[in-house]
Amino acid sequence: MNHYIGVIGAGACPAPIYELARNIGFEIGKRGWILVCGGLKGVMEGAAKGCVEAGGMTVGILPGLDRTSANPHINIAVPTGLGDGRNLLIIRSSDAVVAVSGGYGTLSEIALALKVNKPVIGLDTWKNIPGVRYAGDPLEAVGLITALLP
Amino acid sequence: MNHYIGVIGAGACPAPIYELARNIGFEIGKRGWILVCGGLKGVMEGAAKGCVEAGGMTVGILPGLDRTSANPHINIAVPTGLGDGRNLLIIRSSDAVVAVSGGYGTLSEIALALKVNKPVIGLDTWKNIPGVRYAGDPLEAVGLITALLP
Amino acid sequence: MNHYIGVIGAGACPAPIYELARNIGFEIGKRGWILVCGGLKGVMEGAAKGCVEAGGMTVGILPGLDRTSANPHINIAVPTGLGDGRNLLIIRSSDAVVAVSGGYGTLSEIALALKVNKPVIGLDTWKNIPGVRYAGDPLEAVGLITALLP
Amino acid sequence: MNHYIGVIGAGACPAPIYELARNIGFEIGKRGWILVCGGLKGVMEGAAKGCVEAGGMTVGILPGLDRTSANPHINIAVPTGLGDGRNLLIIRSSDAVVAVSGGYGTLSEIALALKVNKPVIGLDTWKNIPGVRYAGDPLEAVGLITALLP
Repeated sequence: MNHYIGVIGAGACPAPIYELARNIGFEIGKRGWILVCGGLKGVMEGAAKGCVEAGGMTVGILPGLDRTSANPHINIAVPTGLGDGRNLLIIRSSDAVVAVSGGYGTLSEIALALKVNKPVIGLDTWKNIPGVRYAGDPLEAVGLITALLP
Repeated sequence: MNHYIGVIGAGACPAPIYELARNIGFEIGKRGWILVCGGLKGVMEGAAKGCVEAGGMTVGILPGLDRTSANPHINIAVPTGLGDGRNLLIIRSSDAVVAVSGGYGTLSEIALALKVNKPVIGLDTWKNIPGVRYAGDPLEAVGLITALLP
Repeated sequence: MNHYIGVIGAGACPAPIYELARNIGFEIGKRGWILVCGGLKGVMEGAAKGCVEAGGMTVGILPGLDRTSANPHINIAVPTGLGDGRNLLIIRSSDAVVAVSGGYGTLSEIALALKVNKPVIGLDTWKNIPGVRYAGDPLEAVGLITALLP
Repeated sequence: MNHYIGVIGAGACPAPIYELARNIGFEIGKRGWILVCGGLKGVMEGAAKGCVEAGGMTVGILPGLDRTSANPHINIAVPTGLGDGRNLLIIRSSDAVVAVSGGYGTLSEIALALKVNKPVIGLDTWKNIPGVRYAGDPLEAVGLITALLP
């Protein structure tokens, strides 16, 4: 069965973070892994764009009820209407998670993933969270994912 | 954007119902619609099998936390850990719903879909529910879906 | 431990249904049972009002995020932000359920309760649902609850 | 309308943390505020015990389906069956939150509360989270709550 890799991060971000997300998304797609994210803009869009550019498949688990809120690089859009409750579903749908930058929503997802012992890779994100494996770039991140996946 | 069609029904069913589900799944896949279901066996498996046989894409929104509980015809498996709470997510992820046979879980999904005015097509399922459009066979069901989709 | 009895029904109803809900709420409160409902108006308000008039305790599990949407007879208001997803929480919080009149939301709750084998008493509600125990009046309803509680 | 104060923290804790939770619970109950927690043992039990000792009311929002998993100081037990998904409901049900010690589950709750701009008071918990107001003892914590409540 395929691996599902979550990419979590804020819905608005500066261009360099968007590119970072796009690069990690590309590496995920290149490996044939399925990318799971929150489906909106910012880090979620960058990651989905990169994954699709590499020929990968993307799943967006949306906070609202409207599928059209998904960014254009989402292949499968799942509207939940749960608001921040969809954060937990992203974690439950992912075998490992990459946190890219991000705010409180991302921090909640990091914590929910660590709570259930899923690998969390950090890229330029919340610092000094015990349990997060910090990577310096996307290639190191996918290397950690490969090493840590069950 | 693609249409997402939910197929709802029991996790265990006699062979003729399985074939009915497979046939409706096939018609869904043939039209390029994305099939959403609960991801388990019975009607969900029959529908997913038919959809994949027609070259379509299937999404399984699972009640448990274990992705491997998905039947082998699910392309994208979303474990939720919400138990019956995932029924609502199936409805929220679907633009229209086809109910095939089914028990109380299916009845809850029919009601949740009608509550938010989504088209519900009934195939050999709970009878006399006002608002359900009853079809005699899979072709009539997809005809109704086509007519009722926004 | 106390019994928790759910009263489910529509958020708008004619005066006789409101009185029916108030009467069943009164009988629930009189017995020291905790009343669980959706916290809004109509049947939910009538039931909560009756329960409080009998000296009972009421819990309202709200669909939105705003506690002030609760009717004035709710002692404990739990905002969920889950929309119709809160229906399942009402069922999970109740040891038995009384359905009073109601529409599709109520039907979904009846089905979710029957799915997990919780007693469902029907008062002037959806007819001919196998598994529902239909009562002619509030006293018969509480008699059935007493008989069916674990 | 009454204030609802969440107390979040781990389900197992050393005796001094239990006493700290009991003291903050006592101050909450003394002020007539309703205490919301996860309903289990450890910090949740200490806080609920203190609140009831002060004559207050306690609500436990449980991860499982079994009401009897609640600690004996919970007045209103709400089984959700959502697992860690109930963390979000604790936050949505609280007007302000006090974090006492705690692990990843508590961190997720801190983040979810900060995400929606609810006051978060920290007592001997995750350090250096921007937005958390750290208190040195229960009296300072309730002082902060009083100052920060809308």
